[in-house]
Amino acid sequence: MTHFADRLSELCRTRGNAVCVGLDPRWEALPDEVRARHGDGTLAGAARAFEAFCTRVIDLVAPLVPVVKPQSAFFEACGPAGLAALQAVLRHARGQGLLTILDSKRNDIASTAAAYADAALGGVAWGGTVTPVWDADSLTVNPYLGRDGVEPFLASARRGGRGVFVLVRTSNPGAGQFQDLRCEGRPLYRHVGEAVRGWSRESLGEWGLGDVGAVVGATYPAEMGQLRQALPEVPFLVPGFGAQGAGAADVAGAFRDDGLGAVVNSSRGIICAFQPSDPAWERALQKATRDTIAALREATPMGRL
Amino acid sequence: MTHFADRLSELCRTRGNAVCVGLDPRWEALPDEVRARHGDGTLAGAARAFEAFCTRVIDLVAPLVPVVKPQSAFFEACGPAGLAALQAVLRHARGQGLLTILDSKRNDIASTAAAYADAALGGVAWGGTVTPVWDADSLTVNPYLGRDGVEPFLASARRGGRGVFVLVRTSNPGAGQFQDLRCEGRPLYRHVGEAVRGWSRESLGEWGLGDVGAVVGATYPAEMGQLRQALPEVPFLVPGFGAQGAGAADVAGAFRDDGLGAVVNSSRGIICAFQPSDPAWERALQKATRDTIAALREATPMGRL
Repeated sequence: MTHFADRLSELCRTRGNAVCVGLDPRWEALPDEVRARHGDGTLAGAARAFEAFCTRVIDLVAPLVPVVKPQSAFFEACGPAGLAALQAVLRHARGQGLLTILDSKRNDIASTAAAYADAALGGVAWGGTVTPVWDADSLTVNPYLGRDGVEPFLASARRGGRGVFVLVRTSNPGAGQFQDLRCEGRPLYRHVGEAVRGWSRESLGEWGLGDVGAVVGATYPAEMGQLRQALPEVPFLVPGFGAQGAGAADVAGAFRDDGLGAVVNSSRGIICAFQPSDPAWERALQKATRDTIAALREATPMGRL
Repeated sequence: MTHFADRLSELCRTRGNAVCVGLDPRWEALPDEVRARHGDGTLAGAARAFEAFCTRVIDLVAPLVPVVKPQSAFFEACGPAGLAALQAVLRHARGQGLLTILDSKRNDIASTAAAYADAALGGVAWGGTVTPVWDADSLTVNPYLGRDGVEPFLASARRGGRGVFVLVRTSNPGAGQFQDLRCEGRPLYRHVGEAVRGWSRESLGEWGLGDVGAVVGATYPAEMGQLRQALPEVPFLVPGFGAQGAGAADVAGAFRDDGLGAVVNSSRGIICAFQPSDPAWERALQKATRDTIAALREATPMGRL
């Protein structure tokens, strides 16, 4: 069983980049042809369109990038049919050799957290067998509930060489309302970061990185560099690049000198890189992916991969 | 359109109590007869068993209590079929006149938070129509992402007279790891509580309570009394009573003097109040519900409802 951070690092080295394509399907931004083929005004029709679009995106980006990150919210908005689509999208991504991050920011305590975790990661154990449910390689987790809100996710992840990304410093304008509060001499997010480091060091892979990562927004580049120094064993998942305002140079501080240690997510910059009416949307999407990779290789240590 | 807190308060007054029955279906704790009828070793079979059990629980408790709170994690653990069961359980609860709290502790930012919120509360707007998805009366929300992580939930709730319960002080043993950090002179959870008060005061109902509540664990009774004083307009959702260790007297401080202002959740104390092999489990469950109500009416201002 290969360690999560080693699987991630090897894939980044193989592809020569650490770009994560965010799969955030929005009805109004889907290609016209996808909407026309599947949309019938129902949530189930929207779910079919999301599945068709995301599986096609996966086919287009799988030769180029190491990771995709489906955003659970957009699938949940289609009801049970949307969750079936999410399951199919995750399965398709694995089949295409991609590592998956299920972005659902789950959080709860004790056996309830374990239920979320087993569903997303380790599989549900009933009646003597373990059944995979969402079967993602990793999951985003919100830390507000404290250690017994996070540790059930780690336990489930570690049963199968999977990982967890804990929200530390998010990319939104209001992130600082609580995350920046000075607590006992340091901002709250630094306390959360230190806890993440402790969890991550419990299980290090061959590249010196742990299986508990941190979500660190690209929109606060100075803080990201400080966090990279303070949390050397922690893989970073970096949202906020592109449509949210951060440029390639802003994420340079997320990487180790060898180009490992971070994955940079781009959602709208790739999956909305075309007009819905454009019949050549697939080419535009692949070009946007290549351009994203090139810009990040140019401006960050990712170029050393 | 009746204000969320008024709907909640009127229901509590009508039933003479403020007990919330937590619907946390665990396979191993279901009555034998339910497992035998629906269980076939698949997740879909478990989902059918969860739906059958929870709808029966709803029938049994609807004449007695004002609120039920399905826990999303246990339904998600059954995959898409589990989410269909969750939808059916929420629909059945509404049909039986109960107010529903969907306990899914969702959190994200901007349009992603809006997708979660519209799915749970206000309905999804596509193509000129608004389609309900989970259609709950209220939702639990995790505040770590700050104001732009919470406000999309309020906007969606307010379009339909619904509510939100924000995690402030959770009931788990490790809650204090971050929530108790002293930030600028006060614990973090007090900062979150003040923010919740600000949101709640934006929209007060006739009983002086807002549509943004706080989750405040029963396992920290001294802190709960302080929070009740500091946040007079905020309805409290109180987990931790019963199986998690808090007694009836511990939750007294959550209420206003008139018996309004709080809802006390009991999950395992009611839905696991029998041996799975007990053929009279329905009677045991109703007795546990009545005993819970009596104990809380005796020991708290709920007795004045």
